[in-house]
Amino acid sequence: MRIVQVSLGRRSYRIQIGAGLLSRLGADCARLGLGRRCAVVTDANVGRHFAKAALRSLSSSGFDPVLITVPAGEKSKRLAIVERCYDQLAAHRLERSSFLVALGGGVVGDLAGFVAATYLRGIPFVQVPTTLLAQVDSSVGGKTGVNLKAGKNLVGSFYQPRLVLCDLDTLKTLPKREYISGLAEVIKYGIISDARLFARLERALPLLLRRHPATLADVVARCCQIKAAVVGEDETEGGLRAILNFGHTLGHAIENSSGYGKYLHGEAIAIGQVAAARLSQNLLGLSAAEVQRIEQLFVRAGLPVSLRLNPVQRKKLFAALKLDKKVSAGEVRFVLAKKIGVVVRGQRVPPEMISAVLP
Amino acid sequence: MRIVQVSLGRRSYRIQIGAGLLSRLGADCARLGLGRRCAVVTDANVGRHFAKAALRSLSSSGFDPVLITVPAGEKSKRLAIVERCYDQLAAHRLERSSFLVALGGGVVGDLAGFVAATYLRGIPFVQVPTTLLAQVDSSVGGKTGVNLKAGKNLVGSFYQPRLVLCDLDTLKTLPKREYISGLAEVIKYGIISDARLFARLERALPLLLRRHPATLADVVARCCQIKAAVVGEDETEGGLRAILNFGHTLGHAIENSSGYGKYLHGEAIAIGQVAAARLSQNLLGLSAAEVQRIEQLFVRAGLPVSLRLNPVQRKKLFAALKLDKKVSAGEVRFVLAKKIGVVVRGQRVPPEMISAVLP
Repeated sequence: MRIVQVSLGRRSYRIQIGAGLLSRLGADCARLGLGRRCAVVTDANVGRHFAKAALRSLSSSGFDPVLITVPAGEKSKRLAIVERCYDQLAAHRLERSSFLVALGGGVVGDLAGFVAATYLRGIPFVQVPTTLLAQVDSSVGGKTGVNLKAGKNLVGSFYQPRLVLCDLDTLKTLPKREYISGLAEVIKYGIISDARLFARLERALPLLLRRHPATLADVVARCCQIKAAVVGEDETEGGLRAILNFGHTLGHAIENSSGYGKYLHGEAIAIGQVAAARLSQNLLGLSAAEVQRIEQLFVRAGLPVSLRLNPVQRKKLFAALKLDKKVSAGEVRFVLAKKIGVVVRGQRVPPEMISAVLP
Repeated sequence: MRIVQVSLGRRSYRIQIGAGLLSRLGADCARLGLGRRCAVVTDANVGRHFAKAALRSLSSSGFDPVLITVPAGEKSKRLAIVERCYDQLAAHRLERSSFLVALGGGVVGDLAGFVAATYLRGIPFVQVPTTLLAQVDSSVGGKTGVNLKAGKNLVGSFYQPRLVLCDLDTLKTLPKREYISGLAEVIKYGIISDARLFARLERALPLLLRRHPATLADVVARCCQIKAAVVGEDETEGGLRAILNFGHTLGHAIENSSGYGKYLHGEAIAIGQVAAARLSQNLLGLSAAEVQRIEQLFVRAGLPVSLRLNPVQRKKLFAALKLDKKVSAGEVRFVLAKKIGVVVRGQRVPPEMISAVLP
């Protein structure tokens, strides 16, 4: 098992990465000194595979868990589902010392994290991410939230988990498209801060695509390390943390304007990252060769790198861009790359140029 | 103008207490260095009197405010209204540097505070409490939240305002019943930590009931000082802050089990405080004379001090008690008084004894 520490003073916690961790969930929670009552929030797909194991592990460590199952998919990230979760927590009489386990991908983690952040003004929660994307990204760092009609993640809070358990075994059942979507975040870490990781991904991509256990363990741990370091320096996105949004400004707008569900998050940010690489070439002198390497790696991974828009879709996309949380004084700012491994945040980009890099 | 400082490190802020402060709202917000776009959240009753003045003051200081009016009353403290507020913030394109002004009583402050705490994972907010209860209690200290069907304030967050403006002029239009309800919190401060304040209230009650400006200014400022000192030591109710809940454990259960709206908050906690005083006599040796003084002061203020329950209502009340956020391991804990000005928290009370003090 690998351990990555997220250092946030009193809110510090560790990420455990390895095989077979789900069966140790109860024992690990027991070490955190939490109350007896708890809730496992999961979705219908993940629950089918792993809910029993999670409940069994918690019960055998003396906890009294209730299972809350939400529908699978981005549509569950909304306030009506949040309210349904609250009602079930109240019915199970959860208290402030009680805790919540988020068992699932990014949707479950964001939703359950927000529920934990706000129920009784905050109860402890544990992340058990079961997708590659959630393991390397959304389960770490305390961003929780749900969507509004007007946009994705417009509501939420910064609320840190008490523990993150990345059980690599859970990735075995992940549908191929979802697994590949997670690779888009993995590649992002190479671009934003680790040229060696990027080069390793170029070499080891075939192994990664086969979900080779040792390679996966190394790569997930390295991504978590990078994220933990960034979050440790900037918990609430005042500065450095923005680099994690490389490719996301456009990515979110793509997800939003195409109607959530058409593109998986990883697919949208793959397109967003390639577009950001092209903007970086125009504005920061990122070399053509590196733009090419970035595009190639996404293509080899099986991720989309461009999208065709009719004029109506293009208009919707630009309207969605303006709602981005990182908008400041009405102006969209981008994270752009100087070279692979080095990015700069807060870059202004003229709207015409955005249009030009989206063929 | 009186100023009380709430010391919470980087989240410190001040409470300004005085007449005519609403007209200075814009100027005070300008000093905080906030973004141009903002929203004023108010209810239909308060808005009728003060929304124009608030908007005018903000506009004349260069801000671009949108007005969000929610229905008056406790029923607005629910997620459906929260969602409506979010949608209006999104429509007005509020950004992370934008801010929200809560203009109203406790309901508006709790609701708007929760909206501010969670929109874009948190935007700045300013409290402009317009009821006595909100000025001395709910606007200070960062508790925000909404109700669930299962209970009051079961959802929320700890989120500090950037500034609190207590404009004493706004109390002039307050209906008598609501004003008196606020006195229940004022009296509470005397009981929990200031015997001199309690004695002053005994003497100055006629002036207070006439809303005598200088007396009111003194008393509101003193209450805010006490609350600020408690919150400064314990922001998230890990310990000391619990003393602010004197009378509230039963008070909340009364509000909940009678259907919100029958009793005003102050009325419910007046009954709760007198019951807590009787429990204190039984369990901590609070003198009969002081129990008498406590009960008398509430009676003189025009507040209820007892309630009659039929067996069904009694059962509902005890069920509601169990949902209190301060419940630990299924056991209800009370704040009880040793003498006027000195309370002890975390006291176990046998259920039979609770029943006995509620005639």
